[in-house]
Amino acid sequence: MVPAPGLRVPPVDVDDGTALLTDRYELTMLQAALRSGTAGRRAVFEVFARSLPAGRRYGVVAGVGRLLDAIEAFRFDTAELEFLTANGIVDDPTAQWLEKYRFSGNVWGYAEGDCYFPESPILVVEGTFAEAVLLETVALSILNHDCAIASAASRMVQAAQDRPIIEMGSRRTHERAAVAAARAAYIAGFTTTSNLEAGRLYGVPTAGTSAHSFTLLHDSERHAFEAQLASLGGGTTLLVDTYDVERAVRTAVELAGPSLGAVRIDSGDLGVMARRVREQLDSLGARDTRIVVTGDLDEYGIAALAAAPVDGYGVGTSLVTGSGAPTASLVYKLVARTDGADEDAPMRPVAKRSAGKPSRGGRKSAVRRIDAHGTAYAETVSIGETAPGRRDRALLVPLVRDGEIVGRESLRDARDRHVRAVAELPATALQLSKGEPAVPTEFVEGGPRA
Amino acid sequence: MVPAPGLRVPPVDVDDGTALLTDRYELTMLQAALRSGTAGRRAVFEVFARSLPAGRRYGVVAGVGRLLDAIEAFRFDTAELEFLTANGIVDDPTAQWLEKYRFSGNVWGYAEGDCYFPESPILVVEGTFAEAVLLETVALSILNHDCAIASAASRMVQAAQDRPIIEMGSRRTHERAAVAAARAAYIAGFTTTSNLEAGRLYGVPTAGTSAHSFTLLHDSERHAFEAQLASLGGGTTLLVDTYDVERAVRTAVELAGPSLGAVRIDSGDLGVMARRVREQLDSLGARDTRIVVTGDLDEYGIAALAAAPVDGYGVGTSLVTGSGAPTASLVYKLVARTDGADEDAPMRPVAKRSAGKPSRGGRKSAVRRIDAHGTAYAETVSIGETAPGRRDRALLVPLVRDGEIVGRESLRDARDRHVRAVAELPATALQLSKGEPAVPTEFVEGGPRA
Repeated sequence: MVPAPGLRVPPVDVDDGTALLTDRYELTMLQAALRSGTAGRRAVFEVFARSLPAGRRYGVVAGVGRLLDAIEAFRFDTAELEFLTANGIVDDPTAQWLEKYRFSGNVWGYAEGDCYFPESPILVVEGTFAEAVLLETVALSILNHDCAIASAASRMVQAAQDRPIIEMGSRRTHERAAVAAARAAYIAGFTTTSNLEAGRLYGVPTAGTSAHSFTLLHDSERHAFEAQLASLGGGTTLLVDTYDVERAVRTAVELAGPSLGAVRIDSGDLGVMARRVREQLDSLGARDTRIVVTGDLDEYGIAALAAAPVDGYGVGTSLVTGSGAPTASLVYKLVARTDGADEDAPMRPVAKRSAGKPSRGGRKSAVRRIDAHGTAYAETVSIGETAPGRRDRALLVPLVRDGEIVGRESLRDARDRHVRAVAELPATALQLSKGEPAVPTEFVEGGPRA
Repeated sequence: MVPAPGLRVPPVDVDDGTALLTDRYELTMLQAALRSGTAGRRAVFEVFARSLPAGRRYGVVAGVGRLLDAIEAFRFDTAELEFLTANGIVDDPTAQWLEKYRFSGNVWGYAEGDCYFPESPILVVEGTFAEAVLLETVALSILNHDCAIASAASRMVQAAQDRPIIEMGSRRTHERAAVAAARAAYIAGFTTTSNLEAGRLYGVPTAGTSAHSFTLLHDSERHAFEAQLASLGGGTTLLVDTYDVERAVRTAVELAGPSLGAVRIDSGDLGVMARRVREQLDSLGARDTRIVVTGDLDEYGIAALAAAPVDGYGVGTSLVTGSGAPTASLVYKLVARTDGADEDAPMRPVAKRSAGKPSRGGRKSAVRRIDAHGTAYAETVSIGETAPGRRDRALLVPLVRDGEIVGRESLRDARDRHVRAVAELPATALQLSKGEPAVPTEFVEGGPRA
């Protein structure tokens, strides 16, 4: 029995260790801090982006569920510790500390599928310096990748309006990044993915058509279509651009009848071809046969086809590469710490002060301010305690409490949240043209305005 | 005992299945072909790029070793087969076929570290259609990612001339892509990586400095430097731009003495800062203390610092995102097949013929043509049997023979090959400016000109 797509909590593969998906300096800083006595200081790290990719109106949070899996699997096993000590990367006391490592702190974050803006504190990690610094690399890897993909995907979904989009970019990105990309795209509103592992691991619905190689394998296009229809039924999608599109469409309807599911066009001028094929299908009585177009589409290519008789899009390269922004430029910064290891010591705000790459010290909270019409008008980031206004939406939710994962949810929840989060944004958010973030970020001390 | 970096054959983690890192349509095409009787036809698929990323002079082959691992691990286990059948993705006969799947064909490819050009057949896969089509997605995922990273890395290495480059982009890309990126960068000439898993899994040498958070953790920069020096020794690299660079450099030399290993500058105008810090270090007698610069560097940023007193670079984002070209746009195309399953039947060239995305039918071989001065002047791609000329360098090497992996080699071999392959290119190859491929691709029928 396989759970329904999108409705189950992702499984955790605890055999798949994540502790070495880490920059060496995290461990050498740990070692130096253990030795200097500062490792046990309480610390707060925050993840944020100084800006969105050029011209983008909003970002989309994704990867939270994967990050929780990674935190849970963050353990140093014997082979890993041997590698670290044999290569002189850490000394024995540090290795002994790592052997017992379990993250015991707290994490809050923007919920998966929500939107974010410049300086939004999308993750807040609180623990000892030692335990929190170790998570830096893997947390950033996951969030930078998945947020970049989801942010691009959301624009494509908006451009496609109500037409479905298949994610089919696996072949254009690292083989495991492909699985994460399919997951992120689904959260942002893609309908299905071609990636089978994303189906198995996360329950993302899978889909597929066929390739030119399948047609070329057979003695004729007719033989190939017959073979596909015999195996997959008349609801399948036939690829019609291997030789001559008009002839292929005629053959397809002749073989499958007017109830043929769909045809796919993967090359040429997709708008022109779609119109021509629609007319031909209609003239052959195949009025319900859908037209799926693929081939180097991005959000702009999708938008340009809005008036064309297209029933679905397949998007590959531009999705998995973040459509020009393959990383979300998120950083993980220490913003506060105690002067000692005392649990009750007050936190002191800290920040880099030299030229370039500024950051703001102090632990943040954040609300999205909503007007009387239900539209967001500000991202308010507060340093210190907050008292949210009546219509403000608090953005940080608990993800890990005293080391225990408390923030797991289904992909469906994240997907639904994304629909609501985009609906809440002002209309400018949906413009594909380059511009300012749809909602300005404002900083306040000691809580947002009432 | 840990083997020396770069000298060992990468281990294979056969528990880490790769069979579902695959597009759904590969399996549904298989099912249809099994049913129509065409699955057993002998087939040749080729991997090539129609063009290099805009303006690039050459591409770099990487990922071959990872691909061989993936082919070896390409098995459908019980859980995977259950997923496929329970979700109606394949029928029972297909699942039974998949259960026994082992690739039994032949693979040739450009050796890892070699250069490639448009239409270079960097991988040739020969087997039954059924067994070869299944490898399409994972082969393209690995090669598209790793070639993109290595191609960008090589330009950075050329720009850096003899100065070392640390790969430190893990946090800006998917956590497993980061490991592959570190490996690809090392092949292309990077010196070290920050990524510990790349050290453990592939033997890439690891390196690291420290982060601003480490300085901010301590009560003063002086305390932080003392802690780092006490733990890591005077050969360490101190990060000097948290507060005031001049004061930090003074403190660093005061604490470590003139034999301090290095200082790192991560922000501001790196050229100006490097000159200023060099003068200060020299005036303090720390003439051998190196200066490492980091912070949004790409090949152009590196080249712009050629005249600055910089001893090493750290590169992150631009490396892991392929410096504007995050995928190599490689495709996997059926180019020849038999009319039946008979082993001895002649191969028939096949190719898509409609508008857009052209490909050339027929199995290819390739040589790099070398002039009397040892410089490459053409990439000759031959359809049919070849008779390489005296100075031609044959480019395809055996990787898999009758299903057995025969092409494994150490990273060191790939790294050495890359040095030779770049040295063989004409001088235009090393220009960072946009232009044509450094070597033109020419097609011939029946072998290259003698």
